[in-house]
Amino acid sequence: MEKILAHIDENLDASLERLFALLRIPSISAQADHAADCRKAAEWARDELAGMGFSARLSETKGLPGVIATHHAAGPHAPHVLFYGHYDVQPADPLALWHSGPFEPQIAEGPRGRRIVGRGAVDDKGQVVSFFTACRAHLEVTGTLPVRLTILLEGEEECGSPSLKELLTNERETLAADFVLVADTNMWDFNTPAITTSLRGLAAVELKIKAASRDLHSGLYGGIALNPITVLTRILGDLRDDQGGIKIPGFYDGIRPLPAALAESWAGLGFDATAFLGDVGLATPAGEHGQTPLAQLWARPTAEINGIYGGYQGDGTKTVIPAEAGAKLTFRLVPGQDPAKIVAGFERFVTERLPPDAKAEFRNGGGAPGFLVNLDAPFMQAARKALAAEFGRPAALIGGGGSIPVVEAFKTHLGLDTLLAGFGLDDDCIHSPNEKFEVACFHRGARAQARLLAAFAG
Amino acid sequence: MEKILAHIDENLDASLERLFALLRIPSISAQADHAADCRKAAEWARDELAGMGFSARLSETKGLPGVIATHHAAGPHAPHVLFYGHYDVQPADPLALWHSGPFEPQIAEGPRGRRIVGRGAVDDKGQVVSFFTACRAHLEVTGTLPVRLTILLEGEEECGSPSLKELLTNERETLAADFVLVADTNMWDFNTPAITTSLRGLAAVELKIKAASRDLHSGLYGGIALNPITVLTRILGDLRDDQGGIKIPGFYDGIRPLPAALAESWAGLGFDATAFLGDVGLATPAGEHGQTPLAQLWARPTAEINGIYGGYQGDGTKTVIPAEAGAKLTFRLVPGQDPAKIVAGFERFVTERLPPDAKAEFRNGGGAPGFLVNLDAPFMQAARKALAAEFGRPAALIGGGGSIPVVEAFKTHLGLDTLLAGFGLDDDCIHSPNEKFEVACFHRGARAQARLLAAFAG
Repeated sequence: MEKILAHIDENLDASLERLFALLRIPSISAQADHAADCRKAAEWARDELAGMGFSARLSETKGLPGVIATHHAAGPHAPHVLFYGHYDVQPADPLALWHSGPFEPQIAEGPRGRRIVGRGAVDDKGQVVSFFTACRAHLEVTGTLPVRLTILLEGEEECGSPSLKELLTNERETLAADFVLVADTNMWDFNTPAITTSLRGLAAVELKIKAASRDLHSGLYGGIALNPITVLTRILGDLRDDQGGIKIPGFYDGIRPLPAALAESWAGLGFDATAFLGDVGLATPAGEHGQTPLAQLWARPTAEINGIYGGYQGDGTKTVIPAEAGAKLTFRLVPGQDPAKIVAGFERFVTERLPPDAKAEFRNGGGAPGFLVNLDAPFMQAARKALAAEFGRPAALIGGGGSIPVVEAFKTHLGLDTLLAGFGLDDDCIHSPNEKFEVACFHRGARAQARLLAAFAG
Repeated sequence: MEKILAHIDENLDASLERLFALLRIPSISAQADHAADCRKAAEWARDELAGMGFSARLSETKGLPGVIATHHAAGPHAPHVLFYGHYDVQPADPLALWHSGPFEPQIAEGPRGRRIVGRGAVDDKGQVVSFFTACRAHLEVTGTLPVRLTILLEGEEECGSPSLKELLTNERETLAADFVLVADTNMWDFNTPAITTSLRGLAAVELKIKAASRDLHSGLYGGIALNPITVLTRILGDLRDDQGGIKIPGFYDGIRPLPAALAESWAGLGFDATAFLGDVGLATPAGEHGQTPLAQLWARPTAEINGIYGGYQGDGTKTVIPAEAGAKLTFRLVPGQDPAKIVAGFERFVTERLPPDAKAEFRNGGGAPGFLVNLDAPFMQAARKALAAEFGRPAALIGGGGSIPVVEAFKTHLGLDTLLAGFGLDDDCIHSPNEKFEVACFHRGARAQARLLAAFAG
């Protein structure tokens, strides 16, 4: 192992050069005039992997191609790891805010030493090339890899993965691994690696309340005519009890208690809710009373009104009683909650509260259940051991408040669990101008990935 | 009196010809390219009144001129009546929906006999010329008028009366009458005249709830971060109790019981709430429990949310926790309620309910108190007698759910009460294509106005 790690250390500049070659390709998947650049990035990755000894090819879809590469020399009894990443990037605008060209990658000095600056520096080209670096070290030092490895790179992650389902279905047999490794996530802080062990799911619904057949004048009709905005506020204003709990019947049914190992890890994170909220001008955790701030973020479901509308929104006053009013809601869900049941419960909650003359219309926006990794799975044990060895401290077992669509897609289409262990930092400015990746994170990420590959082999 | 009424009957066609001359002038005050037409209509009215023996002139303002005409031959001890009307009209579009040119007035046949069709047929040119017809009959039969009469015609009523205050202030001495007579209102039905004895006032306020310093992602922050839409719905959803009453402290303070004469008149109107609501797709009076439908419309105050907004309103889902959300409210007020106190009470109601991290901003949109005519005033007694004599049944004493700005303006700037007695019908299509005025309403209106002038003299 020491030889493999030394190989990574000694070849760091060459690894950065490889990353820079990829960063120079403006593979913006959301912009049609960059389709050729996207394909160029895919081909770069294919050729890079082929050069390392992988069997590599593009996998065509109705959209941009995937990259598929396999290296199965470890033999049929070795664990089979599926590494997922993406070669596309976010658009770079607003260009004026960049200090250097988004596709002219630079090494700059920052408070933590050297950093790579450019679009995709970390999300996800930097993380992908960091993993390639780990593979190259194994291959050049030992001539092989300790596990069977399949690599899947997607080209549409930044525009909603419209072809991912097609890709997973087309390549089902090739992708039949033991689990998925995703490095598109962050460390807890500069010195502490992290494994994301839970994610909240989502259920989305739009509600429209209708009353009169047309907008009414509030002088002529006010008092006698039902106002749908009043109905909407009364019903949505009743969603929570005074303790911050959601009053939809059955909302909390099926939620399992947080595993002790996670509760313990979270308690040890020293999460500073005051600073977290202070950054956005808030001071007081607004969720369920009696739940810790981290539990409110990661372990407890929410009912969030993302938008509300009705009547007159322009300047000044208009004395209208509108014919309808509406709201868009999403529920963040935790493992055990069923998105369809949550939406159905909300619909009942609304319908039971409708006064005479009010009609409710619903649009179910779909959803996905929450995710909780099996802490006892061998790949989890291996990952914790490898990360601790590299960083000299245990990996933080963290939650995520939002969802990561690929995790859901791998579970749904391939039945695979996912290990989320990446090396970005919260201040890396992904999707923003001056995106960066600390060279130290790239470097230690590669070393940690080399250890991970070995650890998976047992 | 019989001779005067006979004069009106015998000269009906000539009176209609005069009205048609005025209707042919497209005096649309809201459209700048019709400014010359507006002035032409004002000059027509000035010349018409001068021809009848009035001292008549235009009264210039920063906008369109008023018309001022006086006939004070009745002497200093006769009652002084100020008649108010307006010579401007609404825009005529959508033109395609008119069956004849809006400024090519026609006599058409309808279910109630002949009708005058054209823009301004009733609002307000028809009502104004109907009153002129009554004056002309008095003057041509008796050589004088039974009262001192001042006529004020405004040219900007259909575009918000921007110069009315200037006009009333400039002409304060000329307009110093005993009361104002306004004919810009409707009868109860084709056979029943009406006097509008009460109007609701208004208080307007906009509320904005602010929380975080920027929009937040509901995955990253949901659960711990305060959502201002939630705050808004909780507070506004709490505005009413389960009996439909408004919970703002002091909201009902100062409201006087409905005068018995009004309660009695309203009970006799046979108001059909089912039909009234059915026309707009509703079935159930939505106001305070225990109040009659007419009381909900005319005698009870309201708290109406005219608009609400916040977060994402586009297609699909956006998982945002917005930084702010807002609503626009108006309160319909009844006599005894003070608009400023109502808004202050609402602000307290909101502020007391704000959770930590929520800030409320208010924009007071101003308002006006409710209006209740003094039923014992001599002009009211005279009006009821004259209308009953013409129509063979007592005038309905009705309320109005909205406000009529000129009534407020006469009270504020001249200290005058207003008698609202016009001869339009609810189906006259004012402000819409094919505006009409029944010839019978024009005719009986003129006869009733002739009787009114005599009755005011005692």
